[in-house]
Amino acid sequence: MDHIATPAPGVLLSSGPYERIVAGLRDAVETMSGLDPDAVLTAPPVIAREVLETAGYIRSFPQLVGSVHSFRGSKRDWRALAGREDWHRSQEISDLMLLPAACYHVYPQVAGRSVPVSRFCVHATCFRQEATGERGRMRSFRMSELVFLGPPADCLAWRDGWIERMASWLRGLGLDVSVELADDPFFGPGDHLMRDTQREQQLKWEMRVPVGGGVVQAIASCNLHLDHFGGAFGFTTDGGPAHSACVAFGLDRIALALIERHGREPDAVSRCLREKEGTRT
Amino acid sequence: MDHIATPAPGVLLSSGPYERIVAGLRDAVETMSGLDPDAVLTAPPVIAREVLETAGYIRSFPQLVGSVHSFRGSKRDWRALAGREDWHRSQEISDLMLLPAACYHVYPQVAGRSVPVSRFCVHATCFRQEATGERGRMRSFRMSELVFLGPPADCLAWRDGWIERMASWLRGLGLDVSVELADDPFFGPGDHLMRDTQREQQLKWEMRVPVGGGVVQAIASCNLHLDHFGGAFGFTTDGGPAHSACVAFGLDRIALALIERHGREPDAVSRCLREKEGTRT
Repeated sequence: MDHIATPAPGVLLSSGPYERIVAGLRDAVETMSGLDPDAVLTAPPVIAREVLETAGYIRSFPQLVGSVHSFRGSKRDWRALAGREDWHRSQEISDLMLLPAACYHVYPQVAGRSVPVSRFCVHATCFRQEATGERGRMRSFRMSELVFLGPPADCLAWRDGWIERMASWLRGLGLDVSVELADDPFFGPGDHLMRDTQREQQLKWEMRVPVGGGVVQAIASCNLHLDHFGGAFGFTTDGGPAHSACVAFGLDRIALALIERHGREPDAVSRCLREKEGTRT
Repeated sequence: MDHIATPAPGVLLSSGPYERIVAGLRDAVETMSGLDPDAVLTAPPVIAREVLETAGYIRSFPQLVGSVHSFRGSKRDWRALAGREDWHRSQEISDLMLLPAACYHVYPQVAGRSVPVSRFCVHATCFRQEATGERGRMRSFRMSELVFLGPPADCLAWRDGWIERMASWLRGLGLDVSVELADDPFFGPGDHLMRDTQREQQLKWEMRVPVGGGVVQAIASCNLHLDHFGGAFGFTTDGGPAHSACVAFGLDRIALALIERHGREPDAVSRCLREKEGTRT
């Protein structure tokens, strides 16, 4: 019921029983969001390149970025390359990138608008060009995110409320959760969301849990962005840039943690999710 | 309940009610497959580049291909480029491509093995770098495929059986289906699965249905590959290359066709899928 390897490291197939766990987690996130189904979005695994450029993602995480290149030449150009090992020599970067986090599909939807308070739930398959293939560190993985946009104090209160709620939900699933102040491993220069600032301002909290093989991974996080995305995409509240916050559920990592905790019997994990459903307040 | 545009043409978000239709279709395909849940695979939207090279996909469809490029330099290299418009200049092609059809994840799983008769069901989000954005022609879209590997006569009988069964299932959902002999719009040179051969050998049948806005799209297809993949990936039956066949369900196009036929009320479409479920023989 685990993953099935493919010729590419960190790119895994999964079986029906494993997918039932992922689907159960996705449903649980939707239910916890309390949102109307019309505000629950499913996003494709690619996104307009201009969105990640505007968001500053590429500047901060160049090593994780995957961009989509394609061939824009003529049939004649192509015939000269077909079958050659360097067939990709004439490809050019396209208007698309692989999606690194589900929430990036939300901000362009509200660009230039006034947002008193807006909440979204977004599901997506994400991609990060990770260098290692340790357990739980997949290059292609599922993420569900809750996103909150609005005035600064509301964003902070919403994010802080979720730190407790998320830890409590994960513990209710039987997981041994450690809640830790964290930062993103920035690589690029000159981003105002840098590591030290992140820690000082307590912008990122991670839920760390054993996922098997002695490996502990962050399976979820609660993040405050301040006015980073409001400024970049020009969405406002009370006449100034809105703040934003997001809560990210790493569905594949949570599934692995549940299997590590409850064993490889899918029914045990599904029962655990159903029982949790029954006792939700 | 339809799609929500993003800044990239042909790359669409979808809402909860629309996703319920897609999930219902995915379940219906699994049920029709008759397979054990362990043989139902969910595949990531990327695939090892070597698989598509081996399969001959790039040679045949260079214009549809999306390859994943990434940055492999040092921090120092990166700092020289960060923030520049041509930041991607130092990216190189990686070991991954975007997945053009779900079934490509199956063949490497059986490479070099003997397959008396093997059946799979595989779900995936696929990508094709389509040049137009007409209704139903998305660049990122969901596809479920049933794949059959085995002796030539079994493959042919399985594929032919599915032409009837697929048309009957779609008509039972209220769709106005036209079953048509088809070919793939090959671009590259020298592939032995070329257009004329495809038609002569009746390798590809498509189910064409109105999807809205006066547009008719192929929403599903039944395909015979002969020994194309068996030869390329070295899977055999009775000591020779095995044949293969696949049946592809374009989930987003089927969902659009159902909405076009039954109206934008999600309950009507869900009821139609449930009723069909009840009458399945």
